[in-house]
Amino acid sequence: MASKKISMAVIKRLPRYHRYLNYLLELGIKRVSSKELSTRMGITASQIRQDLNCFGGFGQQGYGYNVESLYTEIGNILGINKTFNCIIIGAGNMGQALANYANFERRGFRIIGVFDINPDVIGKKIKNLEVMHLDDIDNFVLNNKVDIAMLCVPYKETAAIADRVARLGVKGLWNFSPMDLKIPYDVIVENVHLSDSLMVLGYKLNERFPRE
Amino acid sequence: MASKKISMAVIKRLPRYHRYLNYLLELGIKRVSSKELSTRMGITASQIRQDLNCFGGFGQQGYGYNVESLYTEIGNILGINKTFNCIIIGAGNMGQALANYANFERRGFRIIGVFDINPDVIGKKIKNLEVMHLDDIDNFVLNNKVDIAMLCVPYKETAAIADRVARLGVKGLWNFSPMDLKIPYDVIVENVHLSDSLMVLGYKLNERFPRE
Repeated sequence: MASKKISMAVIKRLPRYHRYLNYLLELGIKRVSSKELSTRMGITASQIRQDLNCFGGFGQQGYGYNVESLYTEIGNILGINKTFNCIIIGAGNMGQALANYANFERRGFRIIGVFDINPDVIGKKIKNLEVMHLDDIDNFVLNNKVDIAMLCVPYKETAAIADRVARLGVKGLWNFSPMDLKIPYDVIVENVHLSDSLMVLGYKLNERFPRE
Repeated sequence: MASKKISMAVIKRLPRYHRYLNYLLELGIKRVSSKELSTRMGITASQIRQDLNCFGGFGQQGYGYNVESLYTEIGNILGINKTFNCIIIGAGNMGQALANYANFERRGFRIIGVFDINPDVIGKKIKNLEVMHLDDIDNFVLNNKVDIAMLCVPYKETAAIADRVARLGVKGLWNFSPMDLKIPYDVIVENVHLSDSLMVLGYKLNERFPRE
């Protein structure tokens, strides 16, 4: 599996292919052409062929792709056959929404701890986890293998908390604060900017339904 | 302003430019080169020049971009000088997180109503809005100009609710359910798939810190 050669642009599209192939599997569909995938996904058929060629020729002329093997292979490339232990920092609405999002667990992202500093929240159960005080995070990370910290804390506290978990050896940060993280450690950061997607929606609305 | 010719790939990067330029403005920085922007944003300088050339030549050789005029122009293209009235459907954790997200309002997305069907939640105040029963949505949309519905409802109910608000004439849907929406109306849909971003993080972690 020549995953080293796959560009990040392709990688970013893989979760989407993975989702669509999952739908097809659930519908009992065994094979699919790049043209059918194209119609369903709104990506051009040639882009799809190009993307999927990156990791071996699953498609056969006149037959299409085998849905199940393509689904499995993309899952392997994405590493969802592995488990990532995750902690959530900040048990506000966003932190709770993430803790309750069943899809993550199914894809190998297991929430094993939730932290906050608000006394009203500490000790409260979210799913089956008691919210812990942020002061306990050092011990927790030292005693548990933590791969990813999901940061749902206020804007101004994000940098300090990211720094703290990175020092503890957590290698993946999933950041929901509006601030892009830059920290001087060898960690992987993915920033989620919800308003970017909303602004694209606003742009498309203006373009299609122009207003005065 | 030749916004018609800008490709969707460029449009999707504009919110990010807009955020960075906002940081620079807050720092009191008046001009910036494509090289500096490149270092800060992790986009190649040539990509930046190409993107920003799409809507007129703000950059000058040896001078760089005027931060304020670039910020304003990108904001205009994105339409953030306009206001969008938004409603949230589903006042669970995700709906509440969105209602409390101050950044949206600052970018022209005003939450004017929140709906749910859970009696424990109806009447409760989220920010300054009382949660209304979903049965009241028809009247509400008829009496208020609603541009965008943010859908934070369970997977299985999403399609029916999207259909309902689209029939009422709401033209923009921002969908947080894991299901991509396809509805037979002339509406704009943006789907947010949080797990896609998490899966990319997982991929990068595996690649940089391979495990057994």
